Amino acid sequence: MTADSSPARRDAGRPRGATVVAAVLRAVRAELADHGYEGLSVERVARRAEVNKTSVYRRWPTREALVAAAMEGLLDDFGDAPDTGTLRGDLHALASPIADLAAQPEGVALLRAALSPATGSDLALLAARRGEAAPPGEGSATGGRQPPRVAFAERARARGEWRAGVDPHQLVFTLVGAIIHRALFERADPRGGWLDRLVDLVHDGASSGSPADRPPRP
Amino acid sequence: MTADSSPARRDAGRPRGATVVAAVLRAVRAELADHGYEGLSVERVARRAEVNKTSVYRRWPTREALVAAAMEGLLDDFGDAPDTGTLRGDLHALASPIADLAAQPEGVALLRAALSPATGSDLALLAARRGEAAPPGEGSATGGRQPPRVAFAERARARGEWRAGVDPHQLVFTLVGAIIHRALFERADPRGGWLDRLVDLVHDGASSGSPADRPPRP
Repeated sequence: MTADSSPARRDAGRPRGATVVAAVLRAVRAELADHGYEGLSVERVARRAEVNKTSVYRRWPTREALVAAAMEGLLDDFGDAPDTGTLRGDLHALASPIADLAAQPEGVALLRAALSPATGSDLALLAARRGEAAPPGEGSATGGRQPPRVAFAERARARGEWRAGVDPHQLVFTLVGAIIHRALFERADPRGGWLDRLVDLVHDGASSGSPADRPPRP
Repeated sequence: MTADSSPARRDAGRPRGATVVAAVLRAVRAELADHGYEGLSVERVARRAEVNKTSVYRRWPTREALVAAAMEGLLDDFGDAPDTGTLRGDLHALASPIADLAAQPEGVALLRAALSPATGSDLALLAARRGEAAPPGEGSATGGRQPPRVAFAERARARGEWRAGVDPHQLVFTLVGAIIHRALFERADPRGGWLDRLVDLVHDGASSGSPADRPPRP
């Protein structure tokens, strides 16, 4: 569901539509942190966002759609890993905002909601649409569209830093999975030195670097 | 909670106690797969295990304790990675049963239950008790007890295969986190070629191998 296909279309040109969307999705994340997915109420979301309840329902008819939209907003934030000039730097820049999110109660609540059986199917569809659900050749539903997230791998390939045969999607999801395990199972901080070591581990597995480039770590 | 400190102590010597525990924990896993954590009922668990409801309550007074016990049984299963003679083989042997579990509805349900805020605190305690919550020097509550899981790292060190500075706990949790992401977020099969590539990625990041040992993957 996008603003283009919703009744909000007739508001085109007025900033109000986008402002409402941003306010509602911000409120969804805050409410998830306070009450969890099971306790998420559209009424409270509307009150917190200071919008009419019908403004929420006409864009997102179900609670699942609301959470999926909040999740999609986050995926967009993570889509543009900056070009730092090295594979290690790019991986760190990609993982850092995810770790920052997972270090906050709001992020933990959103991750838990994403794991709920109810939202799961919406989110699986979302991931498939974005071409991030399956590596190429394994039943990707995207017809070969390249999600922005793997631009870092193209840059590393061009610099001769990328090891042939490594799947960039699998690498990103390994970083994300390790951060989720750290925050949700171990309940420990997924940032700082822990994140540096994770990036080292995954970088060295994906890199074509010679042993001279990979001294023992202190 | 152990059988030794419970009223079941007076049953010592009779095989019935251990049989009841195994039957109940098997039933918990099956019920989680059928009804999820929110729908887990001690009454149905007892019926499925063909034991008296009081036999369940006197050992595990809460639903959270039941799920934590079912989880602990699984951690025991994963404690003994066989000695295959190589780091890559050991990592594959360690990850395979976890991937097998995550490929089944019962395993997905158990992982979801472990992520629930209600069970989370019990499981965090459990992990801390087992010395798997924090790497050494980061506030581990275990007083230096070495969990069985990292024996593979000691063997790799003795063979000269282990790269200095790599934390074996972080490596195991990275494998587990990637498998959880695959099964719960991507909803894809965490076994077969996907698992082989994951083990390759993590192995190569942890290994001291020279480039001659790490040809481009096909």
